[in-house]
Amino acid sequence: MVNHAFNEQISEISHLLNIINLLNWDASTGMPEKASENRGKQIGLLSKLAQQRILSKEMKTAVAQLDDNPNLSLIESRSVKAVKNAIAYFDKIPTELVTKQAELCSLAEIAWREGRATNQFSLFEPYLERIVNLKKEIADRVGYVNHPYEVATNEFETGLQVPVLKSLFEQLKARLVPLAKKVHQAPKPNNDFLFRSFPIEKQRAFSHSLASKIGYDFKRGRLDTTTHPFEISMTRDDVRITTRFNPNFLNAGLFGTLHEAGHALYEQNVAPELNQTALTLDLIGLYAVAGTSYGVHESQSRLWENRVGRSFEFWQNHYGLLQETFKGTLDDISLSDFYRAINRSEPSLIRVEADELTYDLHIMLRVEIEMGLMDGSLSVKELPEYWRAKMQEYLGIMPSTDTEGVLQDIHWSKGMIGSFPTYTLGNVMAAQFMQAALKEAPYLDQDLSQAKYDSLLSWLTKNILSHGRTYTPDELLMNVTGRGIDPSDYLTYLEQKFAKLYDL
Amino acid sequence: MVNHAFNEQISEISHLLNIINLLNWDASTGMPEKASENRGKQIGLLSKLAQQRILSKEMKTAVAQLDDNPNLSLIESRSVKAVKNAIAYFDKIPTELVTKQAELCSLAEIAWREGRATNQFSLFEPYLERIVNLKKEIADRVGYVNHPYEVATNEFETGLQVPVLKSLFEQLKARLVPLAKKVHQAPKPNNDFLFRSFPIEKQRAFSHSLASKIGYDFKRGRLDTTTHPFEISMTRDDVRITTRFNPNFLNAGLFGTLHEAGHALYEQNVAPELNQTALTLDLIGLYAVAGTSYGVHESQSRLWENRVGRSFEFWQNHYGLLQETFKGTLDDISLSDFYRAINRSEPSLIRVEADELTYDLHIMLRVEIEMGLMDGSLSVKELPEYWRAKMQEYLGIMPSTDTEGVLQDIHWSKGMIGSFPTYTLGNVMAAQFMQAALKEAPYLDQDLSQAKYDSLLSWLTKNILSHGRTYTPDELLMNVTGRGIDPSDYLTYLEQKFAKLYDL
Repeated sequence: MVNHAFNEQISEISHLLNIINLLNWDASTGMPEKASENRGKQIGLLSKLAQQRILSKEMKTAVAQLDDNPNLSLIESRSVKAVKNAIAYFDKIPTELVTKQAELCSLAEIAWREGRATNQFSLFEPYLERIVNLKKEIADRVGYVNHPYEVATNEFETGLQVPVLKSLFEQLKARLVPLAKKVHQAPKPNNDFLFRSFPIEKQRAFSHSLASKIGYDFKRGRLDTTTHPFEISMTRDDVRITTRFNPNFLNAGLFGTLHEAGHALYEQNVAPELNQTALTLDLIGLYAVAGTSYGVHESQSRLWENRVGRSFEFWQNHYGLLQETFKGTLDDISLSDFYRAINRSEPSLIRVEADELTYDLHIMLRVEIEMGLMDGSLSVKELPEYWRAKMQEYLGIMPSTDTEGVLQDIHWSKGMIGSFPTYTLGNVMAAQFMQAALKEAPYLDQDLSQAKYDSLLSWLTKNILSHGRTYTPDELLMNVTGRGIDPSDYLTYLEQKFAKLYDL
Repeated sequence: MVNHAFNEQISEISHLLNIINLLNWDASTGMPEKASENRGKQIGLLSKLAQQRILSKEMKTAVAQLDDNPNLSLIESRSVKAVKNAIAYFDKIPTELVTKQAELCSLAEIAWREGRATNQFSLFEPYLERIVNLKKEIADRVGYVNHPYEVATNEFETGLQVPVLKSLFEQLKARLVPLAKKVHQAPKPNNDFLFRSFPIEKQRAFSHSLASKIGYDFKRGRLDTTTHPFEISMTRDDVRITTRFNPNFLNAGLFGTLHEAGHALYEQNVAPELNQTALTLDLIGLYAVAGTSYGVHESQSRLWENRVGRSFEFWQNHYGLLQETFKGTLDDISLSDFYRAINRSEPSLIRVEADELTYDLHIMLRVEIEMGLMDGSLSVKELPEYWRAKMQEYLGIMPSTDTEGVLQDIHWSKGMIGSFPTYTLGNVMAAQFMQAALKEAPYLDQDLSQAKYDSLLSWLTKNILSHGRTYTPDELLMNVTGRGIDPSDYLTYLEQKFAKLYDL
């Protein structure tokens, strides 16, 4: 059994990181505007206290004692390894560098906001250059196998290697670009009616009921509204989601809620015995999270949003309630017209508004840029032009402003270089997981078509969710699917779905 | 200047206690129900960390160095004194005793809830006995001048002495009991219309606007709804209030909001330079609060709720908006009928529903009981009968059940023996402060009658609010009014107000 000092420290770290999550949740959901300065200091203090505990003498002694001890259980040995990795990371990255990054990013975000508002990339450019240089410095300090981008992206997806990533996107490009082209040449289904008037209170009630139906437990959660939807957990017993409702567009609130509820199902279904262990904590990111990586997390949100929530079977079961909720608004719209509308695809400029088919093309562009910046083959100055060229190549359209182009995402200004691949990894893994689930439990298809979501959730819990961060994403994928990352299931799913939808 | 180690520790303690307040706010405003166990542990950890800092070697060294140093400013010397007092307190009260109290109270609260629900005082009786014994033990350890009750009550009101308290209630009894009798024999004004239908959203908007009008700053605050209204602050830049709205009774939400906004004005108007000093912290209660005591805090809530909010002048200015807000509901009610209705007094069983005139009689009964329990002149077993007798003596009515009698308040089950006096102290001090304000700034009367609340708020800020916990309640009262606690202003105010209202 792992020793007392180790457990004691981890338990305190766990509380501290969970409290930080609550402070962040509050800051996003209605904190008084003038409270932000103090809030920053509060979070800073708790982060410092958590890090002090990771790097404490007691912890280092405990880790040295426990490391490679053959009597440890898997959970114990993986907990020790997680702490050991964090200690090694912080030994290489001095606190001053972390502080420097935080200060740089807070200025960068201001410059980015100003640049985006006024369509001036030049305002953000010098900050992005400094951020890239800092990321390169961190990569050099941490060290990498193939490519400096691996250090950046491994903050979000442990073990992800650049050759794997390159091969993944090559395969996606080869089939997605032509598929999208074909679909966009076909006649578009009508979706006017999605922009009718949908009172927010009714949207909220309907979204609430859908989240419940797929298994989100409101006794251990709550649904609020924010400009940017998110999910955040303070242990498995307190997993909160937010969404945004547009009174004149149904999709945003509806699929946004399913997406965040999918994330929440991961956190709510981690095994209770992992509570207050290192296996529900990201000790390097100093972030309480039970999911093993951003990519696997995204696989769960995409699975419930798209595979389940945008399927014909789903709406066969719930379209009646939707019509009834918005009485008089969708009476003239058939189930199949509704299904086609919510799956309509078209080339678009903005990633967060992109549909299921084009989403990964937006990601591909960003990942190529991030790699190029990190290995020096692309300079920050070149980005606006590069962006336009790639949008033309992948989607056949081009932004007329940088605001709608290279300046649209907040990520880089926050120092998040390397997180974009996880969106596509999520899509791809969701397809692999579904394939494995249906192979092992063929009855799932029928259960889904009968709105029995608990059997899919049980399968996911047993195979993925319950393990928290016990396994790396690679191990988990191998355990569950017998393969590494492989986009063939995903591509086949998209090809079949859109062929049927568009009569290709 | 106070030394670096001292400031560093205080700053961390300040953040920790402010975060605890947020954790408590969240727990009361919509935390998922199953999150409560972890929430308790989170608060427990932060309390422990705060206490460790108060009792740390660095802190003790700093205090020893700074104590009685003639070069300190008033703020510095008072900060040092606050820490010194806390160290002395915790030296006398071992951690085990605090833990024992917390455990006992969590069981006691369950027993109290059960007892209240089923009208069985016997269920709560053994727990209350143990709580009283524990409070006596604490009193003996801490030591007192006149009476063990002083230790209990000084948790809420530093320096309050029993002889002062006894004399205060004797003076109140001598004039309040006959006044109440006379008022209750007179014909009652009609108040039926206060129980008409008042949609909650409109109540919320109206209460929001009243809180704004008296100076509550929503950029540094927010208004939520909870079963039990409260105010809580996380620094002066984040001061939150809650209220409850009853769709069929106007007073609860309206005056509840004014009351909590009054508390909030205290916290929002402490001098910015006291932020993150010991003078915005209760270091013994481990609670972030800028107000110097519960009594002075209550003086501010009562002042805005009753002196301002239940005055004729207030409604002369705002009754039009109220009528307009609830169009069609109060059209037949004149301003003077409305004014009489919101000030109607009658004997009632429940403290939290009591009116301005009878409120202190409810308190008097509780304070006598608390004193008797602490000095052993009254036993827990005797309480139900004692309660009935005193209700008959002071208010001329008697509860038919203990649920409506001795079991009505949660305080004792939570170990809060000694907090009740502060409600009456608040009423009395509010009158003394108003008297001092009007003497020094006679224009305030006219400003209030013209709905210019900022001049009263400025006066209060300068004389009371800005100082935070720099002065003890006694010092503050003496500085501002030139007297100690003295109920004559308060009694005169009540006698005049009700004589006029009831044509006595």
